[in-house]
Amino acid sequence: MVTDQAELRLDPERFRRTGIAEAVYAPGKSPEQCAAAVAGLLAGGPAGPVLLTRAAPEQVEAARERNPGATETAAGLVWHALPPAPGTVLVLTAGTGDLPVAREAVAVLAAYGHDSTLVADVGVAGLHRVLAQRRRLAEADVVIVVAGMEGALASVAAGLTGAPVIAVPTSTGYGSGLEGVTALLAMTASCSPGVTVVGIDNGFGAGCAAVRTLRPLTGGPR
Amino acid sequence: MVTDQAELRLDPERFRRTGIAEAVYAPGKSPEQCAAAVAGLLAGGPAGPVLLTRAAPEQVEAARERNPGATETAAGLVWHALPPAPGTVLVLTAGTGDLPVAREAVAVLAAYGHDSTLVADVGVAGLHRVLAQRRRLAEADVVIVVAGMEGALASVAAGLTGAPVIAVPTSTGYGSGLEGVTALLAMTASCSPGVTVVGIDNGFGAGCAAVRTLRPLTGGPR
Amino acid sequence: MVTDQAELRLDPERFRRTGIAEAVYAPGKSPEQCAAAVAGLLAGGPAGPVLLTRAAPEQVEAARERNPGATETAAGLVWHALPPAPGTVLVLTAGTGDLPVAREAVAVLAAYGHDSTLVADVGVAGLHRVLAQRRRLAEADVVIVVAGMEGALASVAAGLTGAPVIAVPTSTGYGSGLEGVTALLAMTASCSPGVTVVGIDNGFGAGCAAVRTLRPLTGGPR
Amino acid sequence: MVTDQAELRLDPERFRRTGIAEAVYAPGKSPEQCAAAVAGLLAGGPAGPVLLTRAAPEQVEAARERNPGATETAAGLVWHALPPAPGTVLVLTAGTGDLPVAREAVAVLAAYGHDSTLVADVGVAGLHRVLAQRRRLAEADVVIVVAGMEGALASVAAGLTGAPVIAVPTSTGYGSGLEGVTALLAMTASCSPGVTVVGIDNGFGAGCAAVRTLRPLTGGPR
Amino acid sequence: MVTDQAELRLDPERFRRTGIAEAVYAPGKSPEQCAAAVAGLLAGGPAGPVLLTRAAPEQVEAARERNPGATETAAGLVWHALPPAPGTVLVLTAGTGDLPVAREAVAVLAAYGHDSTLVADVGVAGLHRVLAQRRRLAEADVVIVVAGMEGALASVAAGLTGAPVIAVPTSTGYGSGLEGVTALLAMTASCSPGVTVVGIDNGFGAGCAAVRTLRPLTGGPR
Amino acid sequence: MVTDQAELRLDPERFRRTGIAEAVYAPGKSPEQCAAAVAGLLAGGPAGPVLLTRAAPEQVEAARERNPGATETAAGLVWHALPPAPGTVLVLTAGTGDLPVAREAVAVLAAYGHDSTLVADVGVAGLHRVLAQRRRLAEADVVIVVAGMEGALASVAAGLTGAPVIAVPTSTGYGSGLEGVTALLAMTASCSPGVTVVGIDNGFGAGCAAVRTLRPLTGGPR
Amino acid sequence: MVTDQAELRLDPERFRRTGIAEAVYAPGKSPEQCAAAVAGLLAGGPAGPVLLTRAAPEQVEAARERNPGATETAAGLVWHALPPAPGTVLVLTAGTGDLPVAREAVAVLAAYGHDSTLVADVGVAGLHRVLAQRRRLAEADVVIVVAGMEGALASVAAGLTGAPVIAVPTSTGYGSGLEGVTALLAMTASCSPGVTVVGIDNGFGAGCAAVRTLRPLTGGPR
Amino acid sequence: MVTDQAELRLDPERFRRTGIAEAVYAPGKSPEQCAAAVAGLLAGGPAGPVLLTRAAPEQVEAARERNPGATETAAGLVWHALPPAPGTVLVLTAGTGDLPVAREAVAVLAAYGHDSTLVADVGVAGLHRVLAQRRRLAEADVVIVVAGMEGALASVAAGLTGAPVIAVPTSTGYGSGLEGVTALLAMTASCSPGVTVVGIDNGFGAGCAAVRTLRPLTGGPR
Repeated sequence: MVTDQAELRLDPERFRRTGIAEAVYAPGKSPEQCAAAVAGLLAGGPAGPVLLTRAAPEQVEAARERNPGATETAAGLVWHALPPAPGTVLVLTAGTGDLPVAREAVAVLAAYGHDSTLVADVGVAGLHRVLAQRRRLAEADVVIVVAGMEGALASVAAGLTGAPVIAVPTSTGYGSGLEGVTALLAMTASCSPGVTVVGIDNGFGAGCAAVRTLRPLTGGPR
Repeated sequence: MVTDQAELRLDPERFRRTGIAEAVYAPGKSPEQCAAAVAGLLAGGPAGPVLLTRAAPEQVEAARERNPGATETAAGLVWHALPPAPGTVLVLTAGTGDLPVAREAVAVLAAYGHDSTLVADVGVAGLHRVLAQRRRLAEADVVIVVAGMEGALASVAAGLTGAPVIAVPTSTGYGSGLEGVTALLAMTASCSPGVTVVGIDNGFGAGCAAVRTLRPLTGGPR
Repeated sequence: MVTDQAELRLDPERFRRTGIAEAVYAPGKSPEQCAAAVAGLLAGGPAGPVLLTRAAPEQVEAARERNPGATETAAGLVWHALPPAPGTVLVLTAGTGDLPVAREAVAVLAAYGHDSTLVADVGVAGLHRVLAQRRRLAEADVVIVVAGMEGALASVAAGLTGAPVIAVPTSTGYGSGLEGVTALLAMTASCSPGVTVVGIDNGFGAGCAAVRTLRPLTGGPR
Repeated sequence: MVTDQAELRLDPERFRRTGIAEAVYAPGKSPEQCAAAVAGLLAGGPAGPVLLTRAAPEQVEAARERNPGATETAAGLVWHALPPAPGTVLVLTAGTGDLPVAREAVAVLAAYGHDSTLVADVGVAGLHRVLAQRRRLAEADVVIVVAGMEGALASVAAGLTGAPVIAVPTSTGYGSGLEGVTALLAMTASCSPGVTVVGIDNGFGAGCAAVRTLRPLTGGPR
Repeated sequence: MVTDQAELRLDPERFRRTGIAEAVYAPGKSPEQCAAAVAGLLAGGPAGPVLLTRAAPEQVEAARERNPGATETAAGLVWHALPPAPGTVLVLTAGTGDLPVAREAVAVLAAYGHDSTLVADVGVAGLHRVLAQRRRLAEADVVIVVAGMEGALASVAAGLTGAPVIAVPTSTGYGSGLEGVTALLAMTASCSPGVTVVGIDNGFGAGCAAVRTLRPLTGGPR
Repeated sequence: MVTDQAELRLDPERFRRTGIAEAVYAPGKSPEQCAAAVAGLLAGGPAGPVLLTRAAPEQVEAARERNPGATETAAGLVWHALPPAPGTVLVLTAGTGDLPVAREAVAVLAAYGHDSTLVADVGVAGLHRVLAQRRRLAEADVVIVVAGMEGALASVAAGLTGAPVIAVPTSTGYGSGLEGVTALLAMTASCSPGVTVVGIDNGFGAGCAAVRTLRPLTGGPR
Repeated sequence: MVTDQAELRLDPERFRRTGIAEAVYAPGKSPEQCAAAVAGLLAGGPAGPVLLTRAAPEQVEAARERNPGATETAAGLVWHALPPAPGTVLVLTAGTGDLPVAREAVAVLAAYGHDSTLVADVGVAGLHRVLAQRRRLAEADVVIVVAGMEGALASVAAGLTGAPVIAVPTSTGYGSGLEGVTALLAMTASCSPGVTVVGIDNGFGAGCAAVRTLRPLTGGPR
Repeated sequence: MVTDQAELRLDPERFRRTGIAEAVYAPGKSPEQCAAAVAGLLAGGPAGPVLLTRAAPEQVEAARERNPGATETAAGLVWHALPPAPGTVLVLTAGTGDLPVAREAVAVLAAYGHDSTLVADVGVAGLHRVLAQRRRLAEADVVIVVAGMEGALASVAAGLTGAPVIAVPTSTGYGSGLEGVTALLAMTASCSPGVTVVGIDNGFGAGCAAVRTLRPLTGGPR
C-alpha cells in the first residue's frame, strides 16, 4: 500500500522567517498544481509577494484565472508586490544575451519594492562602457553583475565600487563557456575581494540575495 | 633589452574606492617585498586597514620589524584596524576543520571594526545544533557559513534567516569532497533562495564580502 | 560470416539468486522485443515480479497485448507483483520535480509487496517540513531521499533517523546542478554517517536497494 | 569584538536518535581537543560506542591518557563497544591495497557488536575468487565491497547475492583511477540493480551504513 | 582573395599503408560529396573495402546511385568487401542497447573478410551469461567488449581469455554513465592486465583495431 | 521603479583602438535589434568592417533591408570590407566537418582585406596530405589550424613552419571528443613550442587573432 | 568477532587461462607479503613469468632473498622469464620523460620472450624523427606509443602502419596535460582508425596487451 | 632481445624550419644527458639559440662545464643568443605570483634578440593600473598577459590594443583557480575577439609564440 502525501507542502511562514516568500517554481507542475500552489500561498492573507516563476503559457493562464490580481514580470507572475522600499540595485550585463537572466533579477527586486537600474552590454572588451557607470557603481546599494563567457565583468565592477557585488554566471555563448561552468569558476576565483556568486543562470537567486542584502535598509518583512 | 617594471603596483586608493584597502598577499613575495609593500601602503597615512595575509614566519618578521604597530590575527598581521563600527556578523562552521577559514573571515571583519560571533561545529548531521542558533541567525546583519564535504549547512542556515548568507566552501575532508569542488558546486546550487558563494577556502573573500554588505550601516570608508 | 547471437539472454534465476527478478529495460528494444522479453520471463511460471521499465506507448501496448495481466505503475508495467510483505519505506523528495523518480522507487517497492509512504516537497529551505516527518523517519524501516540541486536533504534526514538512508540524486533544476552530478557528489560526501547513494535519476535502483535492505524482514525470495 | 564559540558542539543524543554515536574525527583538532571531545561524549555515561578516528599518534596518546579503557582498532580508538549483536557482514576487497579502508569498516562494525568476515583480494580479473565466496555472499546480512581502479567487483558481487550491497570506491591505483573518482562513478552507474555507494575511501561511512541496515535485526540503540 | 582548396583529399594509398582503406564519414558532407568521395576511392580500382559510415538516407541514396555494387551493413554501405580471411572475432555486449555499436564493429570486420560471432546481453549482473561464453572466449582470436554504464564486462571478459581484448565504452544508459565517460574511465582503469580501449561509441574504431590485430593471420593488405 | 538602460552599447571606437571593429553577434537579439545595431555602427561613417555574425534568416533579412550594401559571407553579412592588404593566411582543416568553422575565419580575414588559402581535410591519419602543404606552411604569414577529435594537426603543422599558428578546437565528432574539450586541452598541451589556441568552434576569434597578428604588415587601422 | 581472511588470494592458473601470469603489485604490501606472494606463485613449478612490480628497495630485497633466481628489469624483478618467442614490438616515445613507462612495457615483453625495439624522442614537433621509423613501423608486429602532453604521436604513428597500435598516455609534462588526462582523452579520440589505449602511465598494461596481441604467433601459454 | 635506441633524437634543423631552435627540457634527464644534448645542438655551429630549461642545479652545472659560454636567464641557460632584432613585446602580469612564468617568456624573447617590457601587478581589481599601460599596449608589437585566478586581465588588455595578445593561464592562487584550469577556460572563452592562449604556466610557449608572431619584422631565421 502506498500512502501518498505527494502534495505540495507550502511554507507560508517563509516570508516572516527569511523576508523572502516562497515562490512557485512551475517546471514539473501541472497547470492545476501551479494555480493551487499560488492560491494556497495567497490564502492566509498577504504574507509577502507570491511569484510564479518559469511558467509555460498554460500554467500562467491557469494560475491567473484562479488567482486574480497578478502582474506579469520578467520573473513570471507576481501577486502582492511590496510597496516601494529604500535601496537601489544596479544590474549590469556583459552582453545582450544575458538580459533574460538580468530581467529576472530586476523583477524579483520590483516585487519586493526595490528600485533597480538595468544597464546592459557593458562587457570588458570595451572598458569605457563600464567605466561610464562609475558613478552608478559608487552610489548603488547593491550591484548585480550578469555575465557569461569568461565572466570578467564581475572582477572589474567589484574594483570600482564598495557595494556588495553579486555575480551571476550565465550559459550564454557556446564552446569554451561550457554552458556557464567557465564563468562560475572564474567568478568564484575573482581577484577582486568580496565578489559573491550565485548559480548558473540564477537571476531569481541573485534578486533574492539582493533583497537579503538590503534588509538593513528595509528592516526586513513589512 | 628587458625593461623591467616588475615592482609591486600599490593601489592606495582602493580603500576610498571600494571600502576595502589593498591587502598584501604574501605567497610568492620575498620577506623584503612584503615589508616594502606594507610600508608603501602605510606611507600616505592611514587609508584603511593594511593586512599581510598567508605570510610565513620570516615574512611576518620582516614586515613587523620595518612597520611597527601590527596586531597578529588569524588573517595575518593588521595595521590601522578601523574603530568599532555597527553591524554584527554570525560566522558558522559545519565542523572544527573549517575553523581556520572561518577565523580568517573573523579577523578581516575585526580589522574593519565589525563585531562577529563565531559558532563552530553546527553541521547538519545534528540539526539541533544549528536550530539552537535560530535567534542569532535572525538577529545577525550578515551570516557567513563555512563548510566542506557536501556544504549543506549553507542551505539550512539560509532557510532560518533573512540576513544575507555568504557561503564559503572548504577543502576539509577527503575523497568525494574533491578538495572543495563538491561544496562549491552544492552551495551554488542551493535550494534556499539568496545564498551567495565565494571561492574555496577563501575566508578572506568572505570577510570582504561581509564588509561590503555592511556598508549601508557604516556609510562606507571612514 | 557473422554468427549472430544477439538475442536477449534472459536471467530467470535472478529472482532466486538475488531476490530481485530481471526487469525489462525498454529503451533500445523494439515493441516486439519488449513483448518477447516479458513473455520469456513469465514463461517458467512466477519467479518474482516482472517489470517493463521506461517503455514508450507502443512498447507498452505490444507487451500488454501479448502478456495479459499487467498492472500499470509509475515504474512501468508489472506482472506478478508479490503479496504484501513486512517492511515500510519512507520516500522523501526535496521538491515536486523529483516526484517521477520517487514514484519509480515506490512502484518497485509495491511490486515486491512493500508498503511505502511518499512525502514530497520537504526540502531544507523550510526545515520544519522535514522536521514534521520526524516520527515517520524514526519508524521507517528504510528511508529513500530523492533530491536534485545540492541534495542537502539526504544529510539532514540521515541525522534524524537510525534507518538505512538511500539517496537518489536527480537531474531536476538547471545550471549549477550539472544535471545531477552536483547532487551525486554532495550526497557521497555527506557529513551524516551512513548515507548511501545510487545513480542519478535511478529511482528503480533505489527501490531495488530498499528491497535488498528489507530482506531480513521478508526472508528473501517468496 | 569577537564572540568566540568555537568549541566543539557535542551531540550526545545522536546514538539514541540514529543508532550511531557521534565519532571524534581527529584531523584538524589538537591532542587536547581530541581528549576533551572523547571525555565529553563519555561524560553522560555509556550512550553508544565512542570512536576517535584518523588520529595521529600524539592525538591517540592524549585521548588515551585522559580516557582510560580504549581499545585500538583499525578505525581508531574505541570506548564502550557494544555487546555482540545479531547480523553478519561480509566485507570483500578487490585488492590488498584496499585493506585499510575495509578494516576501518570492520572496526566500526565490531564497535557496534556485529561480526564480520573480511575476505581480501577477490578482484574480477580472476573471477573464481569471488565465485568461491558465493555461499558467504548468499548468507551475509550485508555485503560491503571495497574496490579502486574500475570498481567492477561491486556489480559482480551484487549479481550473486540478495543482500544489500554497500560499495566503497577507493583511491588505490594511479592514473586513470583519478584518485577514486573513476570507481565512484562506475559504482553509481552499476548494471546490478540495488548497489549503493558511499564516498571515496570512506570505510567509516560504509560501516555506519551497515549498522543502519542491520537495525531490523538489532532493534536499534541498545 | 580566397584560394579555396576545400575539396576532399582522398587517401587511396591508405589501404596499402595501413591495411585499412579510407572510409567516408558522412556527417557534414552533402549527398553529392558523399557520392563523389566514394567514387574517388573506387576510381583507381579495388584498393581495399570502401565504407560510407553514419550516412543519412539521402546520402546513402546519392552514393548508391552513382556507385553501383554496394552492400548495406550495420556500419553503412560497403563496396569491394574483401574475400574471407582467417581470424575469428568474438563481440560481446553487456546489454541490448549496446547492439548498434557492436554491429558497426561486426560490419567492419565483415568488410575485411573476417568472421565474427556477436553475443549480446551478457552483462555481469548475471555472471553465468558471460561464463557460458568461456569456450568462445578461449578460442577467439580477438574479443571486442561493448558496454555502457560501468563497463565492468571488459575486466571480467579479459580475466577469462588470453586473446586481445578491445573494449568499447558506450553512451547507453543515463545519469551516472555520463554519456559514456564513466565507462571510458573505468575501462582504462581495468584491473585485468592487457585491456585496451577505443573511443566512446566507436564501433568503427574497434572493428579497425581488430583488423589490425588479425594482421599476423592475414599477412596484411590483400 | 526600474530604470531600464538595456539598449545596446555600441563601441564605434573599437576599430581605431584595436584594429577590429565591433561585430554584431545575432543570437539573443530581435531582427530589429540586429538591424539597429548595424545601423548604429555604420552611422558615423566607415570605421572598419561591420559584421553581423551567427544570424538567423529573419535577422539577416531585417539587417539587409535597413542597411544596404552588405555582402554575404561564411561569417555572416559584412558591410564596408577593407581594401586588399598585405599578409596571407593559410587555413588548414583536419576534416571536412571542420569547414564551417574554418570558413568563418576566412570570411573575417576577407572582411579585413587579407587573402587566405583554405586547404581542407589534411588530418594526420594520412600524413602526406599535410606534408604536401609544406611550401604553403613555410610561406604563410599566419597559419590557422582547425581540428576536432584529438586536434593533433596543430602540433604537426607547427613543427613545419615558423609562422604563428592559431589553433581552433572544434566540436566535430562525438564521444571522446567531448564536444571540443578534448581538442582544446590537447592543443593547449601541444609539444610544438608556440602553438596558441582560441575557444571551441571560434572561427571568428581565430580570424580576429590573425588580423591582429598581421598588424605589422598592415600598420593597423586603415 | 572478525573472521579475517585478508590474506592474498593467488591466482596461479591465470597464466594458463589468459597467457599472462599474475604479477605481484608491491605498493601497499609489506616486504614479507611481497616475498610470500612471489614464493606462492613460484611454488607450483613454473607457470609463466612471475613479476614483482613497482617495488621499493626493501620489498625488492625481501623478495630476492626468499626467492633466488630473479632478474632485475625496468618493470621490476622477474622470475622464470619465458624463452624467446616470435613477434617483435616497436615501442616509440614522444619524449625522454616517457622512457620509464616505455621501459616497463619493454620489460614485460622481455619476460614473455618477445623482442622489442625501443625508439625514444620521436615526438611530432619534428616529424622527420617518426618518419625515419617508417620501415620499423611497417615491419613491427605490434606498435606501442608512449606519449604525454597532447599525445599526438599515437595518431601519426597509426597512419604509418597496419600493425596494432597500443597507446599509453603518460603524466609527463605539467599544466594543461592534467597529469595524463589530456593525452588519455586525445588518444581515445584519435582520427586514425584502430588506435587502442591503456590507462595513464600503465606501461605494464601496454606490455600485457602486446603479449595478448602476439598470441597468434606464439600459440599462447608455453 | 631489446634493441635500445632510447638516445635523444636532436633536431638541429628545427631553427631553420620553424625559426625556433630545439630547447633541452631538463626534467627526466640526467646531468650528463643534459650536457650532451646541449653539446649536440651546439656541435654543428650556431643554428639558433640553445636553451636548457627547467634545470636543477646539478644539471645546470654539468651543462655549463661541458659547454662554455652560457648565460643564465629566467628561462634557464642560453647559448648563442641572437643579436638584437626589431619587435617589442609587452609582458603584463596580474599579480606578483605570476612573475616566474612571465620572466620565462621574457628570457625566451631575449634569447631571440627581442626587447621586452615586463610590467607586473596590473590585475583588474585596480583598473587604473592596466589603464596606465594604455600607451605601451597601443605601441607593443605583441602583448603577453600572464594571469592566474580568473584570468580577466587577458580580456581587458585585448580591449585596449590592436596587437596580438597571447594569454598564459597560471596555477597561482588556490581553491577555485583549480591549478590554472579556471584561467585556461576563462581565457579561451574571452569576450575580446582575438585573444589566443597557451598552456598553463607555459611561459616558454608564450615566448615562442611571440617569436613566431614577430617573424614578419625579423624575416625569420637569421
